[in-house]
Amino acid sequence: MISMLSFLLPRMLLAMPAVDLSQSSLQLSLDGHKFHLDPYWLRERCLSQLSVDLSTLQPLLNPHELPMDMTFENASILGNDTLQVAFTDGHTSKYQLKTLLAELTDFRSNPIQPAQYERPRPSLWSGDLQLTSYNHHDIITNEEVRLNLTEMLLTKGVALVKKIPKEHGIVTAFAKNMSTLRTTDWGPFFNVRVTPDTAGKTAKQDLAYTGKAIGLHTDNPYRDPTPDFQLLHALEHCSCNGKAPCDGCSVLNYIVDGFYIAELLRNESQESYDLLSSIPVRFENNGGDGTSALVTMFPHLELSHDKKEIQAVRFSAKSGQYAPALSPEMAAKFYQARRRFSELAHQPEHALTMQFEPGDILVFDNRRVLHARSHIPANDAARWVQGCYMDRDGLWYAFERLRRIVRGA
Amino acid sequence: MISMLSFLLPRMLLAMPAVDLSQSSLQLSLDGHKFHLDPYWLRERCLSQLSVDLSTLQPLLNPHELPMDMTFENASILGNDTLQVAFTDGHTSKYQLKTLLAELTDFRSNPIQPAQYERPRPSLWSGDLQLTSYNHHDIITNEEVRLNLTEMLLTKGVALVKKIPKEHGIVTAFAKNMSTLRTTDWGPFFNVRVTPDTAGKTAKQDLAYTGKAIGLHTDNPYRDPTPDFQLLHALEHCSCNGKAPCDGCSVLNYIVDGFYIAELLRNESQESYDLLSSIPVRFENNGGDGTSALVTMFPHLELSHDKKEIQAVRFSAKSGQYAPALSPEMAAKFYQARRRFSELAHQPEHALTMQFEPGDILVFDNRRVLHARSHIPANDAARWVQGCYMDRDGLWYAFERLRRIVRGA
Repeated sequence: MISMLSFLLPRMLLAMPAVDLSQSSLQLSLDGHKFHLDPYWLRERCLSQLSVDLSTLQPLLNPHELPMDMTFENASILGNDTLQVAFTDGHTSKYQLKTLLAELTDFRSNPIQPAQYERPRPSLWSGDLQLTSYNHHDIITNEEVRLNLTEMLLTKGVALVKKIPKEHGIVTAFAKNMSTLRTTDWGPFFNVRVTPDTAGKTAKQDLAYTGKAIGLHTDNPYRDPTPDFQLLHALEHCSCNGKAPCDGCSVLNYIVDGFYIAELLRNESQESYDLLSSIPVRFENNGGDGTSALVTMFPHLELSHDKKEIQAVRFSAKSGQYAPALSPEMAAKFYQARRRFSELAHQPEHALTMQFEPGDILVFDNRRVLHARSHIPANDAARWVQGCYMDRDGLWYAFERLRRIVRGA
Repeated sequence: MISMLSFLLPRMLLAMPAVDLSQSSLQLSLDGHKFHLDPYWLRERCLSQLSVDLSTLQPLLNPHELPMDMTFENASILGNDTLQVAFTDGHTSKYQLKTLLAELTDFRSNPIQPAQYERPRPSLWSGDLQLTSYNHHDIITNEEVRLNLTEMLLTKGVALVKKIPKEHGIVTAFAKNMSTLRTTDWGPFFNVRVTPDTAGKTAKQDLAYTGKAIGLHTDNPYRDPTPDFQLLHALEHCSCNGKAPCDGCSVLNYIVDGFYIAELLRNESQESYDLLSSIPVRFENNGGDGTSALVTMFPHLELSHDKKEIQAVRFSAKSGQYAPALSPEMAAKFYQARRRFSELAHQPEHALTMQFEPGDILVFDNRRVLHARSHIPANDAARWVQGCYMDRDGLWYAFERLRRIVRGA
């Protein structure tokens, strides 16, 4: 009955809002909660023309330009939906109670300057994920399909786009249409073939440019920032018509949700998870041709500031991930934790196994999804995969923009 | 006398290296230090062809592919400069003692895959900094000058380049020559004029595109990753021939070393520094035209994992930097800390004050250096500044490459 009421009546009426001033703190009773609000907290949310540029809502004042030791002069509730506050410097501000409540109960999701905002959250998966594939033509022509793909990349971290023209360089055009391109010293793209990559000024070598099998890894953990999303376009590729491996084509690709693997590890051992998320290891690269050096230090698992959420996985045997010298006890635990992460990641049931069809672009979150490929036999048909990186920032921007266009307010 | 000896004699001879095995730990006595080494730590440094690709030195094995519970079978010093270790799985590795010692005493600076490596460290400055300026022609034609500029950007975080053709778009060509370009949803560049920017598909508004004064800030803290370096190219600009302000031109630019300001704050109050480096605030933007939303949460000061070094400053009143609701005691301390940071940053003696000459490009580290500009009077001459962002990663790459070319091994 209560839930019926809360659906039918405006929320504010369930409990009368009230405000109480004592000393420098303001107590706001709202929707059954009591909040203690600081004068500067409220003042930095003032949207009057003395506080913000009215066209963009951007604050005008720097923190030191607010009066020192400012506090409340007066506070009252107007019309059951507005808080009015007078500050000791003579300024008065009004706030919508529902706006304050939204921010007080979910700080991250309720910005002030943008009118609306949604941010898709990662949803974990194992080897039984059904890889969603999209038709290139639909993505170009249909904003709803492009929104769907964008959301898929931000939630599952992986998607397959099919029937893309098998043209040199088109993978970067595709990335620029979805987000912004992350160029590196390799140039806007790189070529994965069983030969050094000559896309840039020199021939660059890497384990990926041999026929050797490559274990599960994320790309370029030696870069800061590490590239967000990776795109791999099969320009030339053998094909078994969905029944890989076949006689003429045995190379397979594997992808694994690193966030899921981290969660498996955490369930087995919080201590192992803590070690991999706190000890920075050294990732390295010699520039591909030995003419430079890129070196970073990151823990394998990057957590949010409150440690509650995982934000990135960095894992790549070929990039070294050299651990510092630890005490014998810590070292034993650290190497056990890393071994277990690697073991869990490589358990076949956690991997999505696939083979490219010529013209496919596989897109995946390079700070989350580990990828691998099997050995390439010398008698396999030609294989030329062109890759590039794109930014998550641009995907967030595109998601919010497309969401408003397709789904409205 | 000791120091003379240590200069003249090979270091290893000062104390005879020795190795001792007991249980699973190996004790290495080296150069007066004693190190306890874990078997997996040593094994991941093995450079034999069973362990690494000999052309790139990239490790071949994933962590779970090393034997479980592997330990030492045997260890000995060969010829005073080599450690030989036999592991219980039958594998034997050799290590140069000087290489091990370098990494054990300075883990960050001694990578394994790159043959050499140097990373310039930030050097703090206040308002008495003499801004180093470079001639564009020299940067294009002389690798030593380009190395010098690159090192300046990585140490001081700011430099001025003069006599650049006043051509639309050339700022991005300059950035691509120095590093890699960071494109955003605004496109490869943006235009700072007293009118909305129409460089992209729509007219984008921002406080910067008005005549209003803008306080000290870093750009785009609402992006993740936040752009590393900013370039501002004065395409059209009034000029007072070095005696700014003058009658026809009063707009001034200010830059401040945010790392220096953070250090001033830390010296005054470690507690204030800790609050600004631990409480994430919410940065926001509406896309410039209200059609999207970008929202991030970062603390104002970003520290390294060991909390010993500052890695980024994010500070921008116009990007909101809204604080979460804190307890009354915490809120009072937090707002006091932020006020003080803002106050210190805006003290004139800490700022380098300058005015563009037409054709200048000012380059600065956008995760370190705060910038501001004064009010632009309506009667000032035309002012058109074109800006873009570039990556630090590409500067690190360029520095190491140029260093080897210009200064040798």
